Amino acid sequence: MQVDIGNALDSVATPGVSRESLERLDERVADAHERILEGVDDREHGYAALELPETADPDEIRATTDPIDCETLLVVGIGGSALGAATIADALDLDIDVYTLDNVDPEGVRNLLDSIDLSKTALHVVSRSGTTAETLANFLVVREAMDTAGIDWTDRTLVTTGSKGNLRKLAERHDLPVLSVPADVPGRFSALSSVALPTAALGGGDVEGLLSGARAESETLSGSLFSCPAYAYGATSYALAQRGWTINAMMPYADSLETFSEWFAQLWAESLGKDGVGQLPARALGATDQHSQLQLYRAGPRNAMVTLLRPNERSDIAIPETELEGISYLGGSSLGELLDAEFEATEASLANAGRPNIRVEIERVDAHELGGLLYGMEAACILAGELFSVPTFTQPAVEWGKNAARGLLGGESEEMREIEGKHECLID
Amino acid sequence: MQVDIGNALDSVATPGVSRESLERLDERVADAHERILEGVDDREHGYAALELPETADPDEIRATTDPIDCETLLVVGIGGSALGAATIADALDLDIDVYTLDNVDPEGVRNLLDSIDLSKTALHVVSRSGTTAETLANFLVVREAMDTAGIDWTDRTLVTTGSKGNLRKLAERHDLPVLSVPADVPGRFSALSSVALPTAALGGGDVEGLLSGARAESETLSGSLFSCPAYAYGATSYALAQRGWTINAMMPYADSLETFSEWFAQLWAESLGKDGVGQLPARALGATDQHSQLQLYRAGPRNAMVTLLRPNERSDIAIPETELEGISYLGGSSLGELLDAEFEATEASLANAGRPNIRVEIERVDAHELGGLLYGMEAACILAGELFSVPTFTQPAVEWGKNAARGLLGGESEEMREIEGKHECLID
Repeated sequence: MQVDIGNALDSVATPGVSRESLERLDERVADAHERILEGVDDREHGYAALELPETADPDEIRATTDPIDCETLLVVGIGGSALGAATIADALDLDIDVYTLDNVDPEGVRNLLDSIDLSKTALHVVSRSGTTAETLANFLVVREAMDTAGIDWTDRTLVTTGSKGNLRKLAERHDLPVLSVPADVPGRFSALSSVALPTAALGGGDVEGLLSGARAESETLSGSLFSCPAYAYGATSYALAQRGWTINAMMPYADSLETFSEWFAQLWAESLGKDGVGQLPARALGATDQHSQLQLYRAGPRNAMVTLLRPNERSDIAIPETELEGISYLGGSSLGELLDAEFEATEASLANAGRPNIRVEIERVDAHELGGLLYGMEAACILAGELFSVPTFTQPAVEWGKNAARGLLGGESEEMREIEGKHECLID
Repeated sequence: MQVDIGNALDSVATPGVSRESLERLDERVADAHERILEGVDDREHGYAALELPETADPDEIRATTDPIDCETLLVVGIGGSALGAATIADALDLDIDVYTLDNVDPEGVRNLLDSIDLSKTALHVVSRSGTTAETLANFLVVREAMDTAGIDWTDRTLVTTGSKGNLRKLAERHDLPVLSVPADVPGRFSALSSVALPTAALGGGDVEGLLSGARAESETLSGSLFSCPAYAYGATSYALAQRGWTINAMMPYADSLETFSEWFAQLWAESLGKDGVGQLPARALGATDQHSQLQLYRAGPRNAMVTLLRPNERSDIAIPETELEGISYLGGSSLGELLDAEFEATEASLANAGRPNIRVEIERVDAHELGGLLYGMEAACILAGELFSVPTFTQPAVEWGKNAARGLLGGESEEMREIEGKHECLID
């Protein structure tokens, strides 16, 4: 990926980042890079994610998925167990339909099950612990639906899980194909592994391309933000957050990257949002959200930086010449040219209002470039975590709610008792 | 809709809103309500939206759409011309497939056109001015695709536009069915009109139900936030924004309301985000985003309030009993019960961390309740606009970019010249 931070500088943005402050920050980037390399070398929890281009095994993934023949893939997982697969499926041109069952809304589940042919559907169940409530509940429901339809679910189910636990035992008992989640890689950093790559493999996608792109990106990591796109992105976003830009709107100009924004949002929110710091990742889509969010980004509170992401190449569609008045400038042009003009105009429009933005470009939306983008953003996030001094690879704040939900379902919740009686309703 | 602001009070949230400050604010609410009523009575620009339950004409809409027979509907519009229709289509159980062509990504447009049968597709082209670049470009492309496929587009095209301009002339020339956008109703407030209701009508949806729900909600408007759910929502969100909660995460616990969040995001961002104030609407989905965004909402910067939205009733799915360890508490329960437990646990989890949240409930996801929700949020937004003292119904900050984009496509842009030479690229 290419990164341009010019519109985050104080010559454009108010407040922006001065060149001098970036040079001072670069000393911390050098130290953080050393720390990251050490973490990678020692395969420390989290840092191990940056080794996936080397440690993921595309041959094992293909050998495991090849026997499964399907027209539709249902990925049953949530959060990091779903978003990588969804991102790959929506970005690449796969030859199967992919759905992620990552919510437990009964009406949503019913609509999905009613709309697909289960006899041509493969299930990929993904949970490290084998106890994730939403994932296991959905798996039980889908398994029963297949049973009811007289379909042998054991023929069509692939599992990615930890080295022990429910799903591992289930796989052994029913002789299911099973892959291991990589050790010490948190879910949100696991796209380039047995968690999400099976989606590409099952759909005839370029697994090796994803990994080679990630590998190429890993080779750009260096001890200076001025020579490393990923660190330039992470360090500048951090510097902007320090100056009050506590929202990062991720705005790809490509429908196929809309789900990438969801993936990025989890990565950025769960990794950095702790101890009172972090940056809220707002999900946007260009050019659509120019007609929805841009008014606020340009004229609302001075707290939202915008990341403008685009592929440099796309297959295009000419706009036909027209008899209609006032839009003759469109005729002879193309949808891609219109989209590019909107991208550049939005970037300029934000700059003109002193709102910081960062441009991220990839060559095109393909496996190689997507692999590089995913890897680059993971590295950016890990660097930002070092600069924020947060524990990047944990998500402690979600535990309280998980326990409370389990207690509520079981009829007894210590957590809910803790807050009883604090709530007062004022509306008649 | 029902609204519960208990978790926004200072007994729970830090900083929260004290009962006393709400009582003082209620005097401003009373004044704002008077101002709003005056605007409605005088059919002033924007305020006229609150009269749509009376002024929209379901018979005219049905008469216009009834002759069109389709299995698929393509809504060609952007922003307020698309999001109301998409919200209705995704929330209600329509008997057609609805797609919105609201971006000009050539690859996205191509994928969509390749995936539908144009001979069974109706087009609804929506643009007040008839010159919206994205909408007109897409219309020209789809029209040509129909021509190429030997399909008479004039048989299958419905137009909603202003009283003059390109699309009006086009409709007259080709004798197309045409509806008028309501006067003085900005796009983002036009869901309950000829802009979005044709989607319901074409899909066999309950147009009258949408309007009757809106009418019922309109009857709850009164001069006190303590007796009006919509104003309770608008005033409390405003009061929280004043205390630093400049992000409003809209988190429905229903897949069918995910697109409602998109609609809300435009309403809230474009109406309130101006003059340096406003609140950024983050789009979330429960329970999915508990595994993505909740860590940040609970432990990141103290700037994100959360709106938790749910239907009280849903058709449910039982979770089968299981042999799997550690999840026996799920068996005998249901997906709906799990989702509800997660909703309540998330609400409590945020409250326990002193993070303000507002609960919004509707009875179920149907036309009547959806109409009430859309209307209620519009009224909440108009009230918040009065309290923020912003011009709620304009979107001046998007004009600069529109002009710049037009200039770029035409080869000449004053706007782009303005900012030339300010940009400096620092990355090697």
